Amino acid sequence: MSLKAYRLLQEVDTVVGYSTYVDLVTEILAPEQETISTGMGTEVKRCKKAIKLAQQGLEVALVSSGDSGVYGMAGLVLELVEKEASDISVEIIPGITAANAAAASLGAPLMHDYTVISLSDLLTPWAVIKKRLIKAAEGDFITALYNPKSKQRVKQIEEARQIFLQQRSAETPVGIVRSAKRGAEEIEITTLEQMLEFEINMLTTVIIGNSDTYSAQDLMITPRGYQV
Amino acid sequence: MSLKAYRLLQEVDTVVGYSTYVDLVTEILAPEQETISTGMGTEVKRCKKAIKLAQQGLEVALVSSGDSGVYGMAGLVLELVEKEASDISVEIIPGITAANAAAASLGAPLMHDYTVISLSDLLTPWAVIKKRLIKAAEGDFITALYNPKSKQRVKQIEEARQIFLQQRSAETPVGIVRSAKRGAEEIEITTLEQMLEFEINMLTTVIIGNSDTYSAQDLMITPRGYQV
Ligand SMILES: C[S@@+](CC[C@H](N)C(=O)[O-])C[C@H]1O[C@@H](n2cnc3c(N)ncnc32)[C@H](O)[C@@H]1O
Ligand SMILES: C[S@@+](CC[C@H](N)C(=O)[O-])C[C@H]1O[C@@H](n2cnc3c(N)ncnc32)[C@H](O)[C@@H]1O
Repeated sequence: MSLKAYRLLQEVDTVVGYSTYVDLVTEILAPEQETISTGMGTEVKRCKKAIKLAQQGLEVALVSSGDSGVYGMAGLVLELVEKEASDISVEIIPGITAANAAAASLGAPLMHDYTVISLSDLLTPWAVIKKRLIKAAEGDFITALYNPKSKQRVKQIEEARQIFLQQRSAETPVGIVRSAKRGAEEIEITTLEQMLEFEINMLTTVIIGNSDTYSAQDLMITPRGYQV
Repeated sequence: MSLKAYRLLQEVDTVVGYSTYVDLVTEILAPEQETISTGMGTEVKRCKKAIKLAQQGLEVALVSSGDSGVYGMAGLVLELVEKEASDISVEIIPGITAANAAAASLGAPLMHDYTVISLSDLLTPWAVIKKRLIKAAEGDFITALYNPKSKQRVKQIEEARQIFLQQRSAETPVGIVRSAKRGAEEIEITTLEQMLEFEINMLTTVIIGNSDTYSAQDLMITPRGYQV
């Protein structure tokens, strides 16, 4: 968490967010600060609630995990404020997104040009995602995959792997990070060949290296090109 | 800056980094903490110095701007430690990279799949960068451009714009952020058509929207696809 987010959270009247994320911050809040937790799939309702409270004159923090501007609540809340022509003021506080948090735990895989792609086809047609995977693979981008797999959604990560195998060696390093920078963090460094042998779930970020990425001593490193 | 980086900086014996970045943190250091600043282009020397001090038993913080794992010092220091089979322990502390910091100042442009591309061809052949720009444009990725232009290097941003114009409307929103989240931050929201009319320098991140990105009320927003 950034110093700025930490300080602001302690100043607001109310903290609104998905229950898991609200739970992660309650320990730094004072007893008089109100929290409002909502469940998964209630994103629009959650943002509207935060806006309504702000319209009533409260200072509200709407929390996301990682960076709220990356598949988080920032876009939705701004869309709603803009659509309603609401005159509340909104400030987006940037955070460390999962790709960068996971990368730090793996070593330094994102040292060259990279893409961030969500494999969730709930809001985006799979054909669009698939096209992006192909372009990312063809462009030799390091690629961070978000929402790689859920209980109901298992085929996408398999297809993504196939797409990368068509452009990159089966030995390309792949980093798998579950719960990056949280209590229960788990890390694996494997290859495109073997990546599906490891647990991948909704709390996982998968980072596929580019053609220069190597692994050594439990580290995944993409050289930038300095003479060492 | 993350809370963790802030705390660790106050605990180490020595802070090593590029002079501008060391200057940005000196105000939080105690008088007895040593700082070692080096100039631009001395990256290998700087990392070797940090490693040497750590081998002597000191706790050393090697600082980068943004996230050290994105075109920063993390990769180089790990490459050197790995090559020398040095037994010092290195921890990479993630940070907020310029793409995410700039995005927050613009609104929420990175709400969908995105790429991060450096236009510096000092360490990477221009043909490789160009290919990535083409794939990013073809894949309808939102794209954050780092190192977009320097006094000596002016053609790359023009060529990048041409590449995107071949795939996207001239009205595609483009955000230009200079010195994101620093004292002198400056922001412009413009279009692919007009982007070259604004100042772009080495302290600038340029974010090109995807085909859904829109601008409204001084904000640049990429909808994720929620029904609002
Ligand atoms: C809806 S997205 C939210 C992303 C978040 N706003 C961010 O910037 O990190 C959820 C996905 O982000 C990734 N993610 C979020 N937090 C993570 C963590 N602590 N460790 C690993 N992956 C994480 C996972 O891929 C997860 O499926
Ligand atoms: C060598 S890269 C270092 C990137 C850094 N490690 C990061 O994660 O943000 C330098 C480039 O990052 C971008 N950048 C770094 N700090 C910035 C800031 N405060 N505002 C805008 N762009 C920035 C600019 O494009 C600059 O040319």
